[in-house]
Amino acid sequence: MYELLKKLFPICRSITGDGVRKTLEILKEECPLLKTYEVPSGTKVYDWTVPKEWNIKDAWIKNSKGEKIIDFKQNNLHVLGYSTPVHKKVSLKELLEILYTLPEQPDLIPYVTSYYKERYGFCMSENQKQNLKNDEYEIFIDSELKDGFLTYGEIIIPGKTEKEVLLSTYICHPSMANNELSGPVVAIELAKWLSGKKNKYTYRIIFVPETIGSITYLSKNYKKMKENTVAGYVLTCLGDEKNYSYLASRYGETLADRAALCALKHYVENFKTYSFLDRGSDERQYCSPGIDLPVCSVMRTKYGEYPEYHTSGDNLNLITLKGLEGGVHIYKKIIEIIENNSKYVVNTPCEPQLGKRGLYPTISTKNTQTLVEDILNILVYCDGKNDLIDLCDITNISPQLCIQTINKLKQANLLEEINENI
Amino acid sequence: MYELLKKLFPICRSITGDGVRKTLEILKEECPLLKTYEVPSGTKVYDWTVPKEWNIKDAWIKNSKGEKIIDFKQNNLHVLGYSTPVHKKVSLKELLEILYTLPEQPDLIPYVTSYYKERYGFCMSENQKQNLKNDEYEIFIDSELKDGFLTYGEIIIPGKTEKEVLLSTYICHPSMANNELSGPVVAIELAKWLSGKKNKYTYRIIFVPETIGSITYLSKNYKKMKENTVAGYVLTCLGDEKNYSYLASRYGETLADRAALCALKHYVENFKTYSFLDRGSDERQYCSPGIDLPVCSVMRTKYGEYPEYHTSGDNLNLITLKGLEGGVHIYKKIIEIIENNSKYVVNTPCEPQLGKRGLYPTISTKNTQTLVEDILNILVYCDGKNDLIDLCDITNISPQLCIQTINKLKQANLLEEINENI
Amino acid sequence: MYELLKKLFPICRSITGDGVRKTLEILKEECPLLKTYEVPSGTKVYDWTVPKEWNIKDAWIKNSKGEKIIDFKQNNLHVLGYSTPVHKKVSLKELLEILYTLPEQPDLIPYVTSYYKERYGFCMSENQKQNLKNDEYEIFIDSELKDGFLTYGEIIIPGKTEKEVLLSTYICHPSMANNELSGPVVAIELAKWLSGKKNKYTYRIIFVPETIGSITYLSKNYKKMKENTVAGYVLTCLGDEKNYSYLASRYGETLADRAALCALKHYVENFKTYSFLDRGSDERQYCSPGIDLPVCSVMRTKYGEYPEYHTSGDNLNLITLKGLEGGVHIYKKIIEIIENNSKYVVNTPCEPQLGKRGLYPTISTKNTQTLVEDILNILVYCDGKNDLIDLCDITNISPQLCIQTINKLKQANLLEEINENI
Repeated sequence: MYELLKKLFPICRSITGDGVRKTLEILKEECPLLKTYEVPSGTKVYDWTVPKEWNIKDAWIKNSKGEKIIDFKQNNLHVLGYSTPVHKKVSLKELLEILYTLPEQPDLIPYVTSYYKERYGFCMSENQKQNLKNDEYEIFIDSELKDGFLTYGEIIIPGKTEKEVLLSTYICHPSMANNELSGPVVAIELAKWLSGKKNKYTYRIIFVPETIGSITYLSKNYKKMKENTVAGYVLTCLGDEKNYSYLASRYGETLADRAALCALKHYVENFKTYSFLDRGSDERQYCSPGIDLPVCSVMRTKYGEYPEYHTSGDNLNLITLKGLEGGVHIYKKIIEIIENNSKYVVNTPCEPQLGKRGLYPTISTKNTQTLVEDILNILVYCDGKNDLIDLCDITNISPQLCIQTINKLKQANLLEEINENI
Repeated sequence: MYELLKKLFPICRSITGDGVRKTLEILKEECPLLKTYEVPSGTKVYDWTVPKEWNIKDAWIKNSKGEKIIDFKQNNLHVLGYSTPVHKKVSLKELLEILYTLPEQPDLIPYVTSYYKERYGFCMSENQKQNLKNDEYEIFIDSELKDGFLTYGEIIIPGKTEKEVLLSTYICHPSMANNELSGPVVAIELAKWLSGKKNKYTYRIIFVPETIGSITYLSKNYKKMKENTVAGYVLTCLGDEKNYSYLASRYGETLADRAALCALKHYVENFKTYSFLDRGSDERQYCSPGIDLPVCSVMRTKYGEYPEYHTSGDNLNLITLKGLEGGVHIYKKIIEIIENNSKYVVNTPCEPQLGKRGLYPTISTKNTQTLVEDILNILVYCDGKNDLIDLCDITNISPQLCIQTINKLKQANLLEEINENI
Repeated sequence: MYELLKKLFPICRSITGDGVRKTLEILKEECPLLKTYEVPSGTKVYDWTVPKEWNIKDAWIKNSKGEKIIDFKQNNLHVLGYSTPVHKKVSLKELLEILYTLPEQPDLIPYVTSYYKERYGFCMSENQKQNLKNDEYEIFIDSELKDGFLTYGEIIIPGKTEKEVLLSTYICHPSMANNELSGPVVAIELAKWLSGKKNKYTYRIIFVPETIGSITYLSKNYKKMKENTVAGYVLTCLGDEKNYSYLASRYGETLADRAALCALKHYVENFKTYSFLDRGSDERQYCSPGIDLPVCSVMRTKYGEYPEYHTSGDNLNLITLKGLEGGVHIYKKIIEIIENNSKYVVNTPCEPQLGKRGLYPTISTKNTQTLVEDILNILVYCDGKNDLIDLCDITNISPQLCIQTINKLKQANLLEEINENI
């Protein structure tokens, strides 16, 4: 995963253009199930319109000696995203008007965009800006903003049922490691894992530019998603090794929320819970009142909560393979819970006689109860009301052990499954 | 307000009689919308009967030297409320049997009544009682207890809808400043404010003797009130500058409770919450099972919770203009919430594009989200389920800012209002 | 009660056999309403089968000198419950294989059984085991395991209605004082009390061997119990003087739970609450999904929570008359609550005029409210929604005072009773 991420890192992505196409091509090499779609500029998508396509070849600022003081090829954050082309000489005063910096983090280059108003600009560190001399500067942006397409990727992995689980991640930030590439890289890893096994649910894994991409995707696929989606997650910020985070859906009560919390409670030591008021990614669209899909997000350190967020500091040093593997691990556990989240009914009155089935010791001492209490506790709450997540909550038994025990009891013909989603 | 209160203070009010009439006359001078009603003694009102009318001209006790040791004209608390007339000489021993004092508060004259059993009596401070000599005393009460009327006042301020808000206050205590006059004075101020503006709801503002007055009023107006009342409040103890108090309705879940708590949480620093078990005023009638109106009470320091309560200490020194203005202020805020408490639905799927409406910055940096998060948070919970109070609770945005934002969004044609009460 | 318990203590009970019969005979002497039933070995009861009947006359181990080193007649715990007969000589090594001890409690003989697999064995203290010499031992068990009967007892005390309250206790442990005999002894005392008074509900008091007995009983009586049972309790561990315990039903929300908690909150100083996950007695059957009766358990110190549990330490020294009386007391209080747990409606709008009924003082001072607030608080929540337990919860008034007040108000014709169970 780390190698894939390194390969994707230098590409200058935006919400449209060749950076997105190149990124999807590389992801398709990893997972050939990925299909790419293009939507023309000007297409109406709900309240929005697909913008012009933006591409950029080069950009720099030179001082009067002809020295490049910043260079797009060194760091693609130096250019304001969606900058219109320009080539002219400007005074220091004029230059300062189109410069973006972060005075509070003077070493870092900020990530700034202007998608929906045409302008041009440059970003640099505050330190560099402070050292600018009163000089004449030559500014150059070799970009193109014209009718084209918005591009996105989609992997569909069919399951036993058309009911589906959504995994959504975004591919629109330039060289950003944690708050961007950790998402697609973990998503591809999960896609490979899911396509190698039999699943109850169909998995819809999508790679879209944030906001306009998810809106565009929804406008084309909403009816089917609304009918079928049982749970969904926004995959982002999954690359560092710090605590896990959970960001709730609009009311925090969907199967997506319940499965996420069940996995986090049983499988990680600490996690931080964020309200939907703290949202910032595509759950803004998925959970909006007119869409209302059951979507939440499980992350490592959340966007906005680490100082390098949306700066040149969100680079390859911020993330690790171990961090990414932790991201994959928690989503595998969430998916395992969703796949097994049926309700069950014990099919005999009173406790069944476990002893004759080899599930209860034949000698009864003061410690007998403890040995089998997990089995008995799961059994007694298999009353048709509780699904797997409820059983874990009530008995405080881990989903994994709960699934194992349920399978044992099903083999002994003691439980019937009520599968509501198929 | 303080001047009005001073004018009303000396009048000897009771549950019937000329004191009530005089009080309502003065209030009518302030607000000519006030109408007065009279109900004859002996009228059956639910389980009760309107009592005889009581009037008093004078009362005193003289010692054997002919010196008045207490004088009704000095302080109308000196006479037991509803005392029958008397004029005779009594020994010290006989006098002590009809004297009421407060041993724990030896400086203060208690306020004592005997509405439903005919007797006579006097009240004085414990200190004065201790100094009484073994003497012959002449006692005199020039009162009259005979068939007459129970008198109450009513202001109706029509709104766009017949649905109404009830403000109820009482006018039956003699010279009591906080636990009596602060209520009518604040009610009149609110009546003047409400009659000067356009309101969604009709306002029913009533001035009744406590208990028997609200029972009588209900027996005559219940059907209409039950059909129309969306929220109601008992106005009392609104004159000091101490913390605010909230006394819940029977189950604490009515619109009246919700609006009161919303105003208190967002607009005052501290407030004390009382259970309905701590009630003591006309919510006893309004919230009784057979009446069941949505009524609670917001006060400054609650009756029974300050030592001067129901004594001669509850006088003009206890209250201030600033205290009364605080009482008016909180009720204005409560009314503003009720008037605006609709539900809303955003009328486009996904987030609307705020940028093209000038509601979102065109430059996106790491701090963009914060700038517009109030708008986005209100919008996303405008899903038809939440009213204004819910929105304030969920987003922790003040009702005032919430109302402003909603109005902005309505002007941008992004929200539809669901008005359930009209 | 203590004398009865002493009489029952030496009997060697098991889940079947003459020990159970003898125990029921003695209980019948105390309460002639008790009827005994026998169910043949081999009878199918739900997922189970009634086992063979077990009886034992004698058992011992002798050393090579012919000295009895353990003797069933000294302590019936020395024999593994349900041991098959045996008489042979064994080496120390062979003996050790059939010996059960408690290494952590080296002074105590454990209580061990093997109901559903045929084997034989002996129990002794760990200390005695450590002192065993390398010798030849003669082991002897004069027992019989053959087709016979499972025996149980039942007392039915009819009430005004067929709706019933279940009290279930068990009679299958040999010489165990707290975790066995305290249950039947308290149950008999309650039966005597209940049969001496008029009750609203019918009382079903049963004495069954644990697990197989309650399963057998249910298989014969389930339909009627399901139709009629409003609340039930498992009576066990009621003999020590320590804190009370409450073990919840499957969801902790039945009338049995509510009445138990109401009694414990108002009548005892401290009590410990256990989740249904901590269950261990016949609530395992009564609360199983296919049975689903409203059953919980109130105990003194719970089984498994005191070190003497299921050892020779659970003997007559562990319990006291005072402890048993405490057990009877709490169940009397619970039954009083259930018997009176109706809903009520006040039959007049507004507060009724208590004064004219002598329930309200005729003089009103600042302290009046307090004097009658209990009456007023009960009255105002008599709105047809709340039963006695709700009224106690809301007003924090004890059930006893609440019942007294309600009776006073009923006599004054102010309340109507809504009796849902008759």
